[in-house]
Amino acid sequence: MKTELIVKPLNAKDFAPYGDVIEVTPEKKHFTINDGFSERYHDLAAIDTLKNNGRTLLNIFRSTPLPLPIALKMMERHPLSSQAFMPLGVEPYLVVVAPSGEFNENAIEVFLASHKQGVNYHAGTWHHYCLALNKVSDFLVIDRGDPKFSNKTEKNCDVIKLDGSKVIRL
Amino acid sequence: MKTELIVKPLNAKDFAPYGDVIEVTPEKKHFTINDGFSERYHDLAAIDTLKNNGRTLLNIFRSTPLPLPIALKMMERHPLSSQAFMPLGVEPYLVVVAPSGEFNENAIEVFLASHKQGVNYHAGTWHHYCLALNKVSDFLVIDRGDPKFSNKTEKNCDVIKLDGSKVIRL
Repeated sequence: MKTELIVKPLNAKDFAPYGDVIEVTPEKKHFTINDGFSERYHDLAAIDTLKNNGRTLLNIFRSTPLPLPIALKMMERHPLSSQAFMPLGVEPYLVVVAPSGEFNENAIEVFLASHKQGVNYHAGTWHHYCLALNKVSDFLVIDRGDPKFSNKTEKNCDVIKLDGSKVIRL
Repeated sequence: MKTELIVKPLNAKDFAPYGDVIEVTPEKKHFTINDGFSERYHDLAAIDTLKNNGRTLLNIFRSTPLPLPIALKMMERHPLSSQAFMPLGVEPYLVVVAPSGEFNENAIEVFLASHKQGVNYHAGTWHHYCLALNKVSDFLVIDRGDPKFSNKTEKNCDVIKLDGSKVIRL
């Protein structure tokens, strides 16, 4: 049986169990710098990339939209690190998450994010991979790499397959 | 005497002494992920934020353009860390740098960056603060914070004043 998932606008309160919403709002800590020419919205996401001698990576993901409607076929999590996505274009995108711990298909939540909103998944949060909408879009991504001068590679991505019964329409 | 500075298009080769250019180009290491729906342009900047127990901060700077022409009045450097800027809007911006070490006013270089290009200043690179052009613009900034649960604050910004004799016209 197909179940249609509810799509909610992304907001910090509802997303708090999963991670941080990266955006400029009056409530964020901010202060004026650079002789008055810049406002610094400070420390907007808990970057957590150092477990097991990891290091912080900065990347760009170029994401192609999936055809709509989207029947979810997978979710993933990064047990060792956070992963932040910030849109570099002007299109909205979808954020699909489920609570960390044992995966529960019935706890999946779907958020519609504007191009002014990034997300930072906390370590362990189940999430779908990046779901661009409307056209191919770039995202700045902050995540974890293994130590640069080490042969050790840590497994930092668990993937679970879904049967496509959970569907997103827009 | 006023000296007009030459403005060059930002490119990785000329910027290499100062830091990384964050952009998607065919030469960057990249690979396909997410069932073919994303291309990962991998590890585009050397994030260096951990000296003296620092931690990685993610911030948004909202920058107001200076009036043109710009007579340079300052440069700064962060001895303990890199600092990355990625434009979140669609306007170009200026990048003003000088080599690390003893400051040399005659070694200042000016680059015009497109909104598809970020920069990551390496620790110690002298640079002007963020110079948005045309309109107020947001930048995602990755830099260093002091340890979260420490009273110790490290001085990580040296500022030098200039007399305004170096001028940028566009």
